[in-house]
Amino acid sequence: MSLSSALLEAAVDQLATLPGIGRRTAMRLALDLLRREQHEVARFSEAIRRMRDEVRFCEVCCNISDEPRCAICRDPNRDEALICVVEDIRDVIAIENTRQYKGRYHVLGGVISPMDGIGPEDLNTRQLMDRVHSGEAKVREVILALGTTLEGDTTGFYLNRKLTEQGVMVTVLARGLSVGGDLSNADELTLGRSIADRKPYEQSTKR
Amino acid sequence: MSLSSALLEAAVDQLATLPGIGRRTAMRLALDLLRREQHEVARFSEAIRRMRDEVRFCEVCCNISDEPRCAICRDPNRDEALICVVEDIRDVIAIENTRQYKGRYHVLGGVISPMDGIGPEDLNTRQLMDRVHSGEAKVREVILALGTTLEGDTTGFYLNRKLTEQGVMVTVLARGLSVGGDLSNADELTLGRSIADRKPYEQSTKR
Repeated sequence: MSLSSALLEAAVDQLATLPGIGRRTAMRLALDLLRREQHEVARFSEAIRRMRDEVRFCEVCCNISDEPRCAICRDPNRDEALICVVEDIRDVIAIENTRQYKGRYHVLGGVISPMDGIGPEDLNTRQLMDRVHSGEAKVREVILALGTTLEGDTTGFYLNRKLTEQGVMVTVLARGLSVGGDLSNADELTLGRSIADRKPYEQSTKR
Repeated sequence: MSLSSALLEAAVDQLATLPGIGRRTAMRLALDLLRREQHEVARFSEAIRRMRDEVRFCEVCCNISDEPRCAICRDPNRDEALICVVEDIRDVIAIENTRQYKGRYHVLGGVISPMDGIGPEDLNTRQLMDRVHSGEAKVREVILALGTTLEGDTTGFYLNRKLTEQGVMVTVLARGLSVGGDLSNADELTLGRSIADRKPYEQSTKR
């Protein structure tokens, strides 16, 4: 499609580079921005540029942070011998929202994906091994909280081997039925897993 | 959700103001931008700001344009006595893509919607009446190419009355079956309309 404005075309081109945004949606977004006040759009554009220019990554856990060390790594009340390994910051937010976890994190920044040419060296795996090997605190347990995909499993397999070599206990999140979920709605892999991993009634968490 | 970075939070807040983009999607977009090179994000942000700051609207038809008068209004080969009224620039693109139309346009910038507090005075209706009443060329016909929604119909009703008062012929786009469409897939309103508006076989376009 050819537009009557090169400026609009440039903005649509840029918006269409976002994941999941095609050219039609990009056009809708551009027209919406065009209808707003000039200072509003300046604020929009500035927030995105500043984020990319000024955001840092925590020097310990690689989480996004405005300071050299993130708020979680600075918190003395959180167990530094317990590290939960996640793919990205969205997982940190999801786990924090449960209010069940009082340890620290390590953000990998992705998962191993040979198809996409992403190997362990492209992720923050070295920093994780450094923490375990020669970090400020003795690490007791590493929880692998990765997605239940082929890539997540591959990454878990790799990290488990490396971490076990260092004598650290490695655990993974439980897989099974969703809380509040129906048996008939669970997919067969999950249901099969929940049967294989069944536990004594007395041990099931009372909540 | 509380993020570990105020800069990221600000960018997510801004992205979430876009139509159809919730906070989860906004977070995904922000993380995607964060993974890009700094100069790429600068170009992204700049394209949006420049579009809003520098785009103009054609002084004749209110279409988006980088110059005072848009390319379509400048084209001497296009019939200036024929005006097609549309809601926004996307409709202009859609009609241009058919290569069937050789007249000019008038972009309303929206449709009348009492529910949203949008009346005729919020749209480019005055400019349309000026073109018809005292424009450079005598306008012969105005085609109302508005959406087939309640708002589109309301706008069409209003414009038809105003334009007929000026002695201009007002037409609307044909409604009926989609080309290549199945009878059984057409909704009943469209099918009903196509029966009421049936025309002699000889007059149906041979394409």
